[in-house]
Amino acid sequence: MPEYNAPIRDMLFVYFELNNGERIKSLPGYEDIDQETVEAILEEANKIARDVLLPINQTGDDQACQFNDGQVTTPDGYKEAYNQYIEAGWNNIALDSEYGGQGLPKSLHLLVDELTCAANLSFSLYPGLTNGAWNSLATYGSEELKNTYFPKMAEGVWSGSMCLTESQCGTDLGLIRTKAEPQSNGSYTISGTKIFISAGEHDLTENIIHLVLARAVDAPEGIKGISLFLVPKYLVNDDGSLGEKNNVSCGSIEYKMGIKASATCVMNFDGAKGWLVGDLNKGMRAMFKMMNIERLAVGIQGLGIAELSYQNAVIYARDRLQGSAPVSVGSPGSPQPLTVHPDVRRMLLTMRSLTEGCRALATRTSQLLDISVKSENQAERELNENLIALLTPVIKAFLTDTGFEVTNLGVQIFGGHGYIKEHGMEQMVRDARIAQLYEGTNGIQAMDLVGRKLPIAGGKLLQTYLQPIINYQKERSADSQLEEFISPLEDALVLLQNASKFIMKNAQKEPAEIGAAAVEYLSLFGLTALAYEWAQMAEIGLQNQTGEEADFYRAKIRTARFFMQRILPRTKGLYSSITAGASSLMDFEDMHW
Amino acid sequence: MPEYNAPIRDMLFVYFELNNGERIKSLPGYEDIDQETVEAILEEANKIARDVLLPINQTGDDQACQFNDGQVTTPDGYKEAYNQYIEAGWNNIALDSEYGGQGLPKSLHLLVDELTCAANLSFSLYPGLTNGAWNSLATYGSEELKNTYFPKMAEGVWSGSMCLTESQCGTDLGLIRTKAEPQSNGSYTISGTKIFISAGEHDLTENIIHLVLARAVDAPEGIKGISLFLVPKYLVNDDGSLGEKNNVSCGSIEYKMGIKASATCVMNFDGAKGWLVGDLNKGMRAMFKMMNIERLAVGIQGLGIAELSYQNAVIYARDRLQGSAPVSVGSPGSPQPLTVHPDVRRMLLTMRSLTEGCRALATRTSQLLDISVKSENQAERELNENLIALLTPVIKAFLTDTGFEVTNLGVQIFGGHGYIKEHGMEQMVRDARIAQLYEGTNGIQAMDLVGRKLPIAGGKLLQTYLQPIINYQKERSADSQLEEFISPLEDALVLLQNASKFIMKNAQKEPAEIGAAAVEYLSLFGLTALAYEWAQMAEIGLQNQTGEEADFYRAKIRTARFFMQRILPRTKGLYSSITAGASSLMDFEDMHW
Repeated sequence: MPEYNAPIRDMLFVYFELNNGERIKSLPGYEDIDQETVEAILEEANKIARDVLLPINQTGDDQACQFNDGQVTTPDGYKEAYNQYIEAGWNNIALDSEYGGQGLPKSLHLLVDELTCAANLSFSLYPGLTNGAWNSLATYGSEELKNTYFPKMAEGVWSGSMCLTESQCGTDLGLIRTKAEPQSNGSYTISGTKIFISAGEHDLTENIIHLVLARAVDAPEGIKGISLFLVPKYLVNDDGSLGEKNNVSCGSIEYKMGIKASATCVMNFDGAKGWLVGDLNKGMRAMFKMMNIERLAVGIQGLGIAELSYQNAVIYARDRLQGSAPVSVGSPGSPQPLTVHPDVRRMLLTMRSLTEGCRALATRTSQLLDISVKSENQAERELNENLIALLTPVIKAFLTDTGFEVTNLGVQIFGGHGYIKEHGMEQMVRDARIAQLYEGTNGIQAMDLVGRKLPIAGGKLLQTYLQPIINYQKERSADSQLEEFISPLEDALVLLQNASKFIMKNAQKEPAEIGAAAVEYLSLFGLTALAYEWAQMAEIGLQNQTGEEADFYRAKIRTARFFMQRILPRTKGLYSSITAGASSLMDFEDMHW
Repeated sequence: MPEYNAPIRDMLFVYFELNNGERIKSLPGYEDIDQETVEAILEEANKIARDVLLPINQTGDDQACQFNDGQVTTPDGYKEAYNQYIEAGWNNIALDSEYGGQGLPKSLHLLVDELTCAANLSFSLYPGLTNGAWNSLATYGSEELKNTYFPKMAEGVWSGSMCLTESQCGTDLGLIRTKAEPQSNGSYTISGTKIFISAGEHDLTENIIHLVLARAVDAPEGIKGISLFLVPKYLVNDDGSLGEKNNVSCGSIEYKMGIKASATCVMNFDGAKGWLVGDLNKGMRAMFKMMNIERLAVGIQGLGIAELSYQNAVIYARDRLQGSAPVSVGSPGSPQPLTVHPDVRRMLLTMRSLTEGCRALATRTSQLLDISVKSENQAERELNENLIALLTPVIKAFLTDTGFEVTNLGVQIFGGHGYIKEHGMEQMVRDARIAQLYEGTNGIQAMDLVGRKLPIAGGKLLQTYLQPIINYQKERSADSQLEEFISPLEDALVLLQNASKFIMKNAQKEPAEIGAAAVEYLSLFGLTALAYEWAQMAEIGLQNQTGEEADFYRAKIRTARFFMQRILPRTKGLYSSITAGASSLMDFEDMHW
């Protein structure tokens, strides 16, 4: 069985030393968020992740969710684990304290989320969907809806689901056919079938609160006629107790590549009772509220599972004796640990540098999110909101691509042993794969970045993000000790800026340039963003070369060096591909496929 | 269920137009191998692949091999399919006609292999292992062994297995512990346990002929004390009939990520009777004979499954309506096929250009193999043997990496639908993954290329391969019509040559440079090799722009263009990573993992 221990030291490093934990502490309501508190929370979260969630991760994959007669049964131990999880309040740490949540920073929640996702990605989706539904309701739901549903959702005895996809529409939500008919009492009658609904039906909670995208009668066609409705599995009586079953049922569950302990449901709404969330025909806005935070959370899934794979690859590479080092340091012929082999070191350092770099970037972004909500300064709120809008698709896609790359390297380090189920390494690959697909495929994230986010503020939003990095780099350009980190960062920045200009200029003539460049551009963006994180981490490392934790900081410097020398060069190929333009894609005639 | 049709037109193109089908025809015994014959064979092979093997691919994955009381049962339909396969002689097309095989060129066999692997990778391993065992026996086995075993193996009623790996030794075969004690009658008694034995036990054949690496009593330590033994499941009587059961048994089978219809066995040899193959303590040589052809065959597995994924991605992308084109060609808002989206086109063309490019390279290599065996000119035989030695690790690793990349793009094009089992796209990813691991991980292939093959003939072997490419490029450097293909090829050649020089020079001081650069070097090599193939394919395309098949050739030109503009630039990042050297890997201290 895989092992896991939360990377608490690294989390504290990126939260307080690299990023702006102090600023979080200065936000209203977060006064207690100091390093000791965060460390204590992570220590406790580590216990439930490692001791409760991890032990049912592999068995859950073997057993999978079962569907019988409309009922979904989660694998053995999931209900007990869920009860422990909600009893300790891990489900509600960032939910509004007004309604029973703990009201802690989202950035802290996302640290805890990394642990949950690492230990058991399937499990994480159940509380995750509740948080997603909550975020949408919190902004757009009426007080009545919030008062009815939030307390039990905060308690965790009711959970949430997001019902968007239909068989004919995944990415293109304008094609939604689910109908909503208004009733005289202000409610709606919802009819239609949704597919791929995570946590749409299961046995962990007493009630499930579905947020459903549907088209009201006489609504405009396409995306402008979509509204969001709340549809509970059980109707709720006036006294808050559960009433009769609503006309919503699970038709079947999917058999999937991975996340098998997560129920992926076909949901049938057969004249189910629902209530409008937000304004009529403004469902997409409410949905995106939910979606954006979910997309950060999905990025964290990639990060968590990457960390899990890395830890187990290190254990295996240290234990497994095979071959000898290029220059043998032992007796000739005596087998040595895999870690002596340069190619194994290359794989381990690729895993490590990507994982730690992604954690740094994710923490930066999640702190911006807290500031964007809690700051008392409107300009700061707006600035951070825009930065999050820019970074959200990068976090979602780059971190989940990283999750897939890293878990595959984990398998590769195990060799044939990685391919069999026993060690759990191949499950990580299968589980990680979903995160590149759901909540908008990574291609859609890339198009969101290039097509929607880059043009914000006349293209100036990118500069808002980049200018502090450029300043950082310029201020250190004469520092000989930092040169090995700053100079590659500068190169990457130049490529990213030139690629951005290329796309924005060419897209005016040929809109296809956006889609043609998008995926590679997002990778270029992510790598450059990580180069900034690694340059800073190296700098902090250099400032801490003595003292008790000198080892920790020295590892940062060396991992930064590896990243700059061996990973960041990928930007060169990406840049050349992007600037080759769209014509070789678009000129291919359809008949030739 | 996935669909499949053999890419026969493309196979004929790479075999006869791009490569040297005429030279194959001129080899002794291959006089009949003309285009009509090859086409007829491929048409027939397509029928069994598409109509017999493909329909049990998905059901075989669901059902998997079962283990009960030492018996392995293959999934429903596998026995019937196997019988059809051997009755038609698909198992023995390249086996020696002297012993009942058809004696056709290996290059033709590998074309047929692509079809078998595409339609059902699990199935392909059963006849594949027989071919592997045969190749080793053919060179090193005594006439007595050949006469005893070959006729039934050619018939397909007996199959083969290769028993190399033990739990403590995968890559490092010097650690083998299985023992062989000589008996007075010239046979040996074999004792030990082997793991990961594909087709080690199953219900498809009457007998299984295991080739087992073991250490004879008093043999030298390490790799120099390994011998190869033939150990049949059932002993064979003097009259050729099956005798008593040998002391070899299957202890269990593995539960794996994919290729679930292929039995992966733990094999226990408990004083089993075996016969030496080749010379005592020279087992590695005999094993490598088998291994080298197997490695080409494993490369073909990656190619076959890539083609399967591409074909199904095209079907889906043409059918699925979602969103509208960057510049809508339909009525606004009307959903259009996925193929209108630039990013989908990018994915499809990546799949296509890699798959067709790999087919071209594989066919070139397999033709060299035939020439190396059959040519009456010793110098030509030796030249081609060396070229194959160089290209074998590239074929194995680059084609299987391609298989994994392409099948993942296939899933990505399907979006969430790619993640569920129904469409079969995720199975292709799981099946493809093994090919990067077995027959020597792709990291081992890369080290073989850089550490063993590049130094051959004082480093001149690489030049033997590259010089014709350099000549080709130079001869066309003034051709303005070809410039868009020749100029990127030239750039890639420069990077490959410089990277080679960098590694060979630096490895003299620091042997770790070999392992540190190997994987990225192999990718750089593979991409450059494909650029050569694509340049030639584009050139042939340009010469055939009129006529009935103008469409076929135009697609070649356009795919070549895409490859040069969008895929080949990967070489730039690889080159930078390689030339950053080994220090950032090797300086990382062990305590920091």
